Amino acid sequence: MMEFSASQIAELCGGTIEGDSNVTVNTIAKIEEGRQGAISFLANPKYTPYIYTTGSSIVLVGRDFVPEREIKATLIRVDDPYATVARLLEMVDKMTRGVKRGIEQPVYIAEGVEIPEDAYVGAFAYIGRGAVIGRGAQIYPRAYIGDNATVGERTVLYPGVTVYHDCHIGRDCIIHAGAVIGADGFGFAPVGDSYDKIPQIGNVVIADNVEIGANTTIDRATMGSTRIEQGVKLDNLIQVAHNCTVGANTVMAAQVGLAGSSRVGNNCMIGGQVGVAGHITIGDHTSIGAQSGIPKSVPAGSRLMGYPAVNAGDFARRAVYLKNLGHLFERVARLEKNINQD
Amino acid sequence: MMEFSASQIAELCGGTIEGDSNVTVNTIAKIEEGRQGAISFLANPKYTPYIYTTGSSIVLVGRDFVPEREIKATLIRVDDPYATVARLLEMVDKMTRGVKRGIEQPVYIAEGVEIPEDAYVGAFAYIGRGAVIGRGAQIYPRAYIGDNATVGERTVLYPGVTVYHDCHIGRDCIIHAGAVIGADGFGFAPVGDSYDKIPQIGNVVIADNVEIGANTTIDRATMGSTRIEQGVKLDNLIQVAHNCTVGANTVMAAQVGLAGSSRVGNNCMIGGQVGVAGHITIGDHTSIGAQSGIPKSVPAGSRLMGYPAVNAGDFARRAVYLKNLGHLFERVARLEKNINQD
Amino acid sequence: MMEFSASQIAELCGGTIEGDSNVTVNTIAKIEEGRQGAISFLANPKYTPYIYTTGSSIVLVGRDFVPEREIKATLIRVDDPYATVARLLEMVDKMTRGVKRGIEQPVYIAEGVEIPEDAYVGAFAYIGRGAVIGRGAQIYPRAYIGDNATVGERTVLYPGVTVYHDCHIGRDCIIHAGAVIGADGFGFAPVGDSYDKIPQIGNVVIADNVEIGANTTIDRATMGSTRIEQGVKLDNLIQVAHNCTVGANTVMAAQVGLAGSSRVGNNCMIGGQVGVAGHITIGDHTSIGAQSGIPKSVPAGSRLMGYPAVNAGDFARRAVYLKNLGHLFERVARLEKNINQD
Repeated sequence: MMEFSASQIAELCGGTIEGDSNVTVNTIAKIEEGRQGAISFLANPKYTPYIYTTGSSIVLVGRDFVPEREIKATLIRVDDPYATVARLLEMVDKMTRGVKRGIEQPVYIAEGVEIPEDAYVGAFAYIGRGAVIGRGAQIYPRAYIGDNATVGERTVLYPGVTVYHDCHIGRDCIIHAGAVIGADGFGFAPVGDSYDKIPQIGNVVIADNVEIGANTTIDRATMGSTRIEQGVKLDNLIQVAHNCTVGANTVMAAQVGLAGSSRVGNNCMIGGQVGVAGHITIGDHTSIGAQSGIPKSVPAGSRLMGYPAVNAGDFARRAVYLKNLGHLFERVARLEKNINQD
Repeated sequence: MMEFSASQIAELCGGTIEGDSNVTVNTIAKIEEGRQGAISFLANPKYTPYIYTTGSSIVLVGRDFVPEREIKATLIRVDDPYATVARLLEMVDKMTRGVKRGIEQPVYIAEGVEIPEDAYVGAFAYIGRGAVIGRGAQIYPRAYIGDNATVGERTVLYPGVTVYHDCHIGRDCIIHAGAVIGADGFGFAPVGDSYDKIPQIGNVVIADNVEIGANTTIDRATMGSTRIEQGVKLDNLIQVAHNCTVGANTVMAAQVGLAGSSRVGNNCMIGGQVGVAGHITIGDHTSIGAQSGIPKSVPAGSRLMGYPAVNAGDFARRAVYLKNLGHLFERVARLEKNINQD
Repeated sequence: MMEFSASQIAELCGGTIEGDSNVTVNTIAKIEEGRQGAISFLANPKYTPYIYTTGSSIVLVGRDFVPEREIKATLIRVDDPYATVARLLEMVDKMTRGVKRGIEQPVYIAEGVEIPEDAYVGAFAYIGRGAVIGRGAQIYPRAYIGDNATVGERTVLYPGVTVYHDCHIGRDCIIHAGAVIGADGFGFAPVGDSYDKIPQIGNVVIADNVEIGANTTIDRATMGSTRIEQGVKLDNLIQVAHNCTVGANTVMAAQVGLAGSSRVGNNCMIGGQVGVAGHITIGDHTSIGAQSGIPKSVPAGSRLMGYPAVNAGDFARRAVYLKNLGHLFERVARLEKNINQD
């Protein structure tokens, strides 16, 4: 990781230095976990006491911060310590991860496919016939882009991502390692005791600014498209079945499963390991607690928990009832005794 | 995607045309979502009203269909619109996906392994010592076939599938991207506070006509074989632990987990995210609702739901009881008041 | 698989032969599933009856075993049949799997990276700038090791493992196919209706002697490290979110999910499909039943079950209450009738 001096950082973020301007840092740490060579920030007053004891070499503070006693760390005063650190995080991320460019060897690029000059194609990547790669796209090693698939501008495909034929991925997307976009939907027609495969000739369409986690799977539609709308964020190991739609800016934690043809609205928040039944609709702005099971459609703005899920308030009440269930059995037994004694 | 004219389609499926025989289509759409350039079909009378308004260019109808008013789309009359569309789906699928042949470069094929002339081995595929590849097999890019593993005739391994050493995959199977066949079973012997690995020297045997979803994992047996019988269909992200057997024609939805040495019978249907405990037996023709947990063996023909799972009828009754639980507390409180007033 | 004669095995394990010393075996089978060409062992007296009927060619028995009637199999008498078979298992495993060495072609190894002479780098493996590979490491085909990542001595990375940049893996670890180490943590800051990505500049640190299952995902920390301590065993398809810590010798079954910043103690046992909420602490030596959901911190030594999880004893009692819930409704109805009749 690269090193920065206090004076370099102050210059980058328009800050003013108090202390040793030559001290250098090579990482970012929480103020309470600070150590030599790290930069921290103080945005929340709750953490102020730590500034006097932190081991960090540099701390970003607000312009109006007034120390009550001596501070060992070099201070850099800025307008907004949190925003500054966010910008620094991004810079550090770019420095360590890099924005990759160029074509490594060996790769497999089908005849006729054009790779923009500022794109990256890592070694062992495979790009099929008729595929289209946007400007600035970063195709990491051993990603697979099937025939006629498209990858939008500045989109990043991490190692081992598979994009099946005819699927489309928008701009500024990030798809993490091992994700599979466009495998066949799970469609079979019973024929006697066994099953015939129903060909899955649809595709997957992913809009702009979507992030998809490692080893998540999004199946192609039987016909038409499985759709992930703009700004959606999916965590790792999620299953999105064929013909689903996930609305704009919806966020799902890891290991969620959506069954076939379910429609999740915009701006929903879905907790980890939730299951959503097939052919149902989840209204916009719905929030669903972890591990819940959603068997039927729910209106916009719902707050759900449990299996099968109920309103979050009902879930809390039910939890209390269940806790007191043993006591209820005792109360009923006492009543029965009283009645029989009468 | 290729284009077909109405007259070409009519010829392919022995149909007769009513309307413009030159109109062309390049996709299939549901009749209610029809658009120009699409072909739809009318099999279920429930959808008949849509034929008058559909935007599709061509609609397949039965020979005896009698329109009640004008239809814009070109009609093609056939014996069985659904079967015809299934055949067309297959044709389209073959056209877009293709049946791949030949060996791309670079690949790694161990010395002595023979690749049949009509097989496909995509770039960056790895085929280990002593592996056997059946005729017409399609090994997509960066699939891995370990030492002494076998892949049956016409079986398709999509990109990034891993088949560990000594595992066997039957004929006419489809294994989707990222699936892992034959990783070590989860076996450890406690030694003091830590664990020693129990070597997993068994394998995985997959019979014919099996489909396995993306990123699904099937572990090798400690000794002997983990078995997936003929006609089984597994969805994405499923875990099958070491020494399990999944019986013929059983179907499992995504994210199901089978613990070690469990045996699932033939022709079962298992919903998404179900968990099955280790060392138990699920009888044939059992159906299990999504997210259920199965702690012990169940006889053939069971219908189960819930966690821990109970008979589906009991589950429904219990749901009603739980819904009315608050009311029950109130009723008991009222009884107590009455008794105390006596 | 190689063949061994009874005399070779007796020599390897210091045993004495009773029967045909020329008989050969090429596999290991349970005594009750024995067949020609297999070796079995008799350690648990419960299985003694099988020794008279087993089809196995060789059976390992204790020095003091006294047969009650004729045995077809060749016997090899050893001090500890179970320990002997464990040693044989290891030998067989090494023979079939092999300890791989050398560099296959093609591979991608960034300039300046040194591969120890006794390491293995399979074809299509990718090793980035500044990566460090320990002695005797086995990097299987198409594994990916990002820039500045490290892999400890004798650690095995199976096909398709992805280790993102700057992540560290200790010695004697085994990471199965498709596992993803160090993808970005799931961190987003709401900005109006959409989300901004919070750069994830931390890493993953995996200590020594850890085994990680196929397609399991362990996310990098936002800052600092996601930590998997020494001796941890993770099964397949597990999700470990950013900034989690998993304590030494903890074991997790398949499909478990840990939300962000959760801390699991040492020597815990976590069943399949369990979910653990974010920012909570699970005390050492805790055991959690399959499919449970853990919403809040629990002390050391807890035994938990259910969703939301309760003490295992309470869970069992609750199960009985729930089973009798219908009866309780009837009892209350009868009481109401009695009261009203009064």
